[in-house]
Amino acid sequence: MAQLKGACIIGQSGGPTTVINASAYGAIKTALESDCITKVLGACNGIKGVLEDNLIDMGKEDPEELKYMQYTPSSALGSCRYKLKDPDVDDTDYKRILEIFKKYDVRYFFYNGGNDSMDTCNKISKFMMKNGYECRVMGIPKTVDNDLTGTDHCPGYPSAAKYVATTVMEICRDCHVYDTGMITIVECMGRHAGWLTAAAALANLKGDGPDLIYLPERDFDLDQFTSKVKEIYARTKKCLIAVSEGIHDKDGTLIVEYGSKDIARDSFGHAQLGGLAAFLANHLKKETGAKVRGIEFSLMQRCAAHIASQTDIDESFAAGKAAVDNAVAGVTDKMVGFARKYVDGKYVCEIQLFDLTDVANAEKKVPMSWITETGDGVTQDFIDYALPLIQGQTKLPIEDGLPRFVNLRKVKAEA
Amino acid sequence: MAQLKGACIIGQSGGPTTVINASAYGAIKTALESDCITKVLGACNGIKGVLEDNLIDMGKEDPEELKYMQYTPSSALGSCRYKLKDPDVDDTDYKRILEIFKKYDVRYFFYNGGNDSMDTCNKISKFMMKNGYECRVMGIPKTVDNDLTGTDHCPGYPSAAKYVATTVMEICRDCHVYDTGMITIVECMGRHAGWLTAAAALANLKGDGPDLIYLPERDFDLDQFTSKVKEIYARTKKCLIAVSEGIHDKDGTLIVEYGSKDIARDSFGHAQLGGLAAFLANHLKKETGAKVRGIEFSLMQRCAAHIASQTDIDESFAAGKAAVDNAVAGVTDKMVGFARKYVDGKYVCEIQLFDLTDVANAEKKVPMSWITETGDGVTQDFIDYALPLIQGQTKLPIEDGLPRFVNLRKVKAEA
Repeated sequence: MAQLKGACIIGQSGGPTTVINASAYGAIKTALESDCITKVLGACNGIKGVLEDNLIDMGKEDPEELKYMQYTPSSALGSCRYKLKDPDVDDTDYKRILEIFKKYDVRYFFYNGGNDSMDTCNKISKFMMKNGYECRVMGIPKTVDNDLTGTDHCPGYPSAAKYVATTVMEICRDCHVYDTGMITIVECMGRHAGWLTAAAALANLKGDGPDLIYLPERDFDLDQFTSKVKEIYARTKKCLIAVSEGIHDKDGTLIVEYGSKDIARDSFGHAQLGGLAAFLANHLKKETGAKVRGIEFSLMQRCAAHIASQTDIDESFAAGKAAVDNAVAGVTDKMVGFARKYVDGKYVCEIQLFDLTDVANAEKKVPMSWITETGDGVTQDFIDYALPLIQGQTKLPIEDGLPRFVNLRKVKAEA
Repeated sequence: MAQLKGACIIGQSGGPTTVINASAYGAIKTALESDCITKVLGACNGIKGVLEDNLIDMGKEDPEELKYMQYTPSSALGSCRYKLKDPDVDDTDYKRILEIFKKYDVRYFFYNGGNDSMDTCNKISKFMMKNGYECRVMGIPKTVDNDLTGTDHCPGYPSAAKYVATTVMEICRDCHVYDTGMITIVECMGRHAGWLTAAAALANLKGDGPDLIYLPERDFDLDQFTSKVKEIYARTKKCLIAVSEGIHDKDGTLIVEYGSKDIARDSFGHAQLGGLAAFLANHLKKETGAKVRGIEFSLMQRCAAHIASQTDIDESFAAGKAAVDNAVAGVTDKMVGFARKYVDGKYVCEIQLFDLTDVANAEKKVPMSWITETGDGVTQDFIDYALPLIQGQTKLPIEDGLPRFVNLRKVKAEA
């Protein structure tokens, strides 16, 4: 493969995670050190930064300061939720992107995001190929939802899972402190895939976990749920429940919609969920007369850098690095992902490449065989899958007792 | 002072904290090592365990296992919210307590709790004195609310403050990630005292803090608040707000009551708050049309052991130890507290004793002079006060990537 010289653009998109910056740092650092890559540009707010010619020169950042990106949650370059149109219907955006690529002689494009971002990445890749503009396009995955297909798991999920498992353990101690009855519901992110909620089961390894776990992979029956809670509560005066925001009944109606009819939708048409824990808490209060508390893990589950998994940080960095290394070596139109191996019984994570066409918009759910027959828990298969991912405490630097996050200069790029 | 030989009871009461067990461990360990204390009894669920003769023998616990108490959130002995009646009106409970004290030859009583628990402790102390039963009674403070009087600060507050400051920093990064507008409200505990909400201001030290902070010490005006948010949002397209659950208007009506008329009350007559963030989020959504997210720190702020302040853990241990040391030395009818000193400009925490009579039911609020004139922030005085408290990362042991909490045998005590 011939050497391809030119600038690169790195963009971040979609809902941020605790470690998306570790991936970006892996890509930026590797790109800055590459002989082929002449300039490293950061797109402000993802693809919108490209469309608006809002690019920053990563080479103008202090390399020592950039290191803090590894431990800084959320997307340091800014994010967006912007859906590119079908180029056969309207190619305005694509022409603009090509114009910007030509302006800065961009020959490498790295896009760091989830399902929708891989769709964006795939469309750009195909457009450039079709138009004969040589540019190597690589997707770098991230999502706390863990629902990207192909890859064993997604950067961002392990840290979110560690947050959920740890926090459930702590809440379990707290909500069982009185001898009077108490029902507690914790609500985790996950519209269609229950990976994050399932992570609550890890707390059961230590005896401080939930009694019931509900994922969106299975239909949810409110009456059956109520009976189960009543039975457990009658027996133990306690009940701790973990639910995915996206649980729905057999007709596909979201349970949170039982409580609220008008759900806001984002620009991808996804329902803006939340409020499920509050709805179920009110429902159970009425049904049982018990003290009930609904807790939403809200943004914390995807930004709690202080409890990130170091395994996740290291793997995320490796994914970003692999995207650049592979692109420089001639690879294009791929998403970097992970394959899992066990060497002497020890978990090992290897880089594997996946076709962007295959991963764009596809969703990977928790296998039905990993959900218990009663539909209110997960099996040992899930535990074996998730446990290696949450190992290792973050090396997040602390100053004045508080996290030290990155502060970028954000110097505007010149063509 | 003559040596007093006999058993001791240690009880925990009120809402738990991250470090209440560090205090209990300080007391238990010191009592187990004391020559005067013949038996160390743990009261299950506070004073209810005494009334119900539900006591465990702490000497039957594995000393190595007990060490994990320091890092385990919530009350390992169980808690209660039980208000002792005025003994002049009804002394049934007191007679029962005396009966149990005699049964086990209890000569030391240590009670680990907040305002209401100090009231319980004080009443028992006075009753025993009045009835000529020799028993040394000591209060060991805890409360995330930091509202106990006399003491410079309360064990439990520093860890909760560290959680709030750290989490606000992380959320600030997350909720500012898009270039589209966003308003975020975080709700902290604190019915009458705003200490915990004020801790959000520590995040501003790192540039990742709230724009507005509202404490219950100042009357809250919804219209004024709305105008300020609108002004900030119009200017920056962002606004991050921290509010105490207990904010109220000039007539004393809780703002959360604006949204809900029937507030549950606990057995002390305190309103069960919560839902304020959701109410304000809905209100601002209507007023601004912006995307608004309400986040409640719920139980996490008082049980997040993984982000506890090691300063808090050490001081809490010291408070428990001092209670036993002082009681053995002849002191009674006191609450252990802290005095602050600066040695060569460095924060030092010293033990100071306070009369139970003075601390029972009294409340310490954030000084009005520490709140900015505009009523939506705190001054440097508060920062100087709080910053030393959140120093030091917890040494919480980790197993399998998860916290290792204490598991007590809870062997029933014999008389």
